Amino acid sequence: MVLPQEIIALKRDGQALKRAQIEAFVQGVVDGSFKDYQAAALLMAILLNGMDAEETACLTESMMRSGRVLQLHEIDRPKVDKHSTGGVGDKVSLILAPLAAACGLCVPMMSGRGLGHTGGTLDKLESIDGFNVYLSEAEFRAQLQTLHTAMIGQSSEMVPADRILYGLRDVTATVESIPLICSSILSKKMAEGIDALVLDVKCGRGAFMKTEADARELAGSLVRICEAMGRRASALISRMDAPLGFAVGNALEVIEAIECLKGRGPADLMEITYALTARMLELGGIVSEEGQARELMADALDSGSALEFFRGMVEAQGGDALVIDDYSRLPRAAELAEYRSESDGYVAGVDARLVGEAVCLLGAGRQASDDTIDPSAGIVLKKKPGDSVSRDECLCCIYYNDTARYEEALQRLEGAFAISTEPVEAPALIIDSL
Amino acid sequence: MVLPQEIIALKRDGQALKRAQIEAFVQGVVDGSFKDYQAAALLMAILLNGMDAEETACLTESMMRSGRVLQLHEIDRPKVDKHSTGGVGDKVSLILAPLAAACGLCVPMMSGRGLGHTGGTLDKLESIDGFNVYLSEAEFRAQLQTLHTAMIGQSSEMVPADRILYGLRDVTATVESIPLICSSILSKKMAEGIDALVLDVKCGRGAFMKTEADARELAGSLVRICEAMGRRASALISRMDAPLGFAVGNALEVIEAIECLKGRGPADLMEITYALTARMLELGGIVSEEGQARELMADALDSGSALEFFRGMVEAQGGDALVIDDYSRLPRAAELAEYRSESDGYVAGVDARLVGEAVCLLGAGRQASDDTIDPSAGIVLKKKPGDSVSRDECLCCIYYNDTARYEEALQRLEGAFAISTEPVEAPALIIDSL
Repeated sequence: MVLPQEIIALKRDGQALKRAQIEAFVQGVVDGSFKDYQAAALLMAILLNGMDAEETACLTESMMRSGRVLQLHEIDRPKVDKHSTGGVGDKVSLILAPLAAACGLCVPMMSGRGLGHTGGTLDKLESIDGFNVYLSEAEFRAQLQTLHTAMIGQSSEMVPADRILYGLRDVTATVESIPLICSSILSKKMAEGIDALVLDVKCGRGAFMKTEADARELAGSLVRICEAMGRRASALISRMDAPLGFAVGNALEVIEAIECLKGRGPADLMEITYALTARMLELGGIVSEEGQARELMADALDSGSALEFFRGMVEAQGGDALVIDDYSRLPRAAELAEYRSESDGYVAGVDARLVGEAVCLLGAGRQASDDTIDPSAGIVLKKKPGDSVSRDECLCCIYYNDTARYEEALQRLEGAFAISTEPVEAPALIIDSL
Repeated sequence: MVLPQEIIALKRDGQALKRAQIEAFVQGVVDGSFKDYQAAALLMAILLNGMDAEETACLTESMMRSGRVLQLHEIDRPKVDKHSTGGVGDKVSLILAPLAAACGLCVPMMSGRGLGHTGGTLDKLESIDGFNVYLSEAEFRAQLQTLHTAMIGQSSEMVPADRILYGLRDVTATVESIPLICSSILSKKMAEGIDALVLDVKCGRGAFMKTEADARELAGSLVRICEAMGRRASALISRMDAPLGFAVGNALEVIEAIECLKGRGPADLMEITYALTARMLELGGIVSEEGQARELMADALDSGSALEFFRGMVEAQGGDALVIDDYSRLPRAAELAEYRSESDGYVAGVDARLVGEAVCLLGAGRQASDDTIDPSAGIVLKKKPGDSVSRDECLCCIYYNDTARYEEALQRLEGAFAISTEPVEAPALIIDSL
């Protein structure tokens, strides 16, 4: 038997780990033979000495196989999902999943919760009364058969290695490693039994990756690992300097997502939703080029079919589908305040990180993973980068229930809006695609 | 409060840690607020990104202060100790401590146990019936006052941070780091309340440091840290390719050490003992140059005074001092076998590592830290590098009690003796001094 410290020593010395060594690590983490302090030492050695594409693919596969892996053979539609590296106001999944299903794909989407300044799809969905994100595997499969999409949380039987390793990385300063990020993201996505994956790798103030170069590196690595594992994959590199759309906060984002499905979505949000969904349709073989995808998507929205897929999903998962036509059925904050501009000019930037942190402070997000959240709290932007603004005009509306939290959030908003005296053009949202 | 992961992140990113951060780490390791997995991640980051002299001195001091630190103010002799990085057949401490005491120093020696192929001073001493290596602090101080030397194990109240960190390093492949090795060695030695320290940094097949360059780096670092902590220090760099002296194994080494104190020691063992003790006498201010030290040491051995210091220590620590004049009172192995040369020639090398491992396999050492040891087992070399040898002549004698262990050890000895057809000159033992 190979001792954990012998495997650690190889990576410490800059060597590439072999399949059997990576499997022994991942299996050992799950069965306890590789202690958490040994895993932590290896994670730091991986962060500092790296892993090549073969090692990373092997790590991803080992992690995926550490638990239940779905095989959705009974489903005859192409099974395609999307993953975003996370941002502020990013409610794309809520629009994209029913839209892609309406266009002919099966979208078996398993998502996570929000932490820190970024939101989570499950938290957003749970602001709909009764919405159940914990389906059994049988329920999930049955819903995919009939409704072609389901949006749920991953069961504890799936990818246990990632839960252990992610928990360790968070407290050992080993989060920021491309191979570790890739394996964490892809082990979970690959366990869904998908044929293809579209990735939205964000960079900027409100994103995990601060620079375009880091985002490109991560995107390239994600696509390579997917392909090494026999899945089609494609990635967009998109800007996350300002929040996506206008709404930030759980129920507020659900409303905005429904508006998108009704054909009244903000331009930036629709731009990225269209781009990602089009790639899913291409990878899934529904269309052969983007123009066809654009037509299909326009039809699905114009005809109301995408909205009906969303309604079907909400109903099937126990949610109050009446919210779709009556937003007052969603949780509503008791208080509303306006945050106003102190000068005339043009909005040069809306700092996504500060807005995300302000919304988190309002109670809409978690600072620790066991915090409960306030689904009604949030911020709705009234101005976006490029907009002109007058002194005393409203920059954003703040929805809250707790004055102390509001005061804290207000402080965080100081400096979130950059006002220029010169006209400003909002930068392109989509930087590149792979 | 600074989170452990924030301190880890600094070292991960190659920054020098500040005193308060290092103290928070060491204190946290002892009080449990810095978890073992966080310590393991930081240890790996230190191994890979290094620590400068200031950081290492600070780490050493924090570790030393994690427990009881002796202040031997009541002792008016200069307090000087020696540390060796460990080798095979290295029984220098047993000779050097009484010799240095006989020459006017106080030697408050705290030692460790053997692990793997290297022996430990405490294990050797315990082969003397009744010898107690666990004195109370009061007993230790009283013995130092009257007998000027005591050889004991460190109490659990001293340097607890090192025990925790060393235990972690052993299982996380973070042993081989100069700053971590330095801080482990020196935090323990400095806690003895010494004024000066002489270091024997070994390199070669049987040593922890394989290359001369690594040994030089470690020696330089050890001396610098000592000086940064206000202690005089000096280091020898010595060769550990072949065992030191002839005897390897606990009781066998005690006999050889007593022979040395009786003036009948092997040349190589006496050479290094003299060199180290002379430096201790210089650092302690007993002599101003090595010639004087040589005279003092020769007197102490010729007059029998060094042997009497050894006898006094054995008696004071409850050991059977009659062993000094009657070696049959030491544990004796039931079986004796001779290992013979297969060819005529000259001994080009005796592989210290293989001999050390063979002796460990005989039961004289520990493979795991909770193994019990057989004090009687061991090997006595009959030939050393440079000696001529005839076919069928005895290369070494093997003392054992268990035939299965003997067979295993015999396999390990294969290839331990390199026989050349050309005359060979044994290389110099002492490579350099700092």
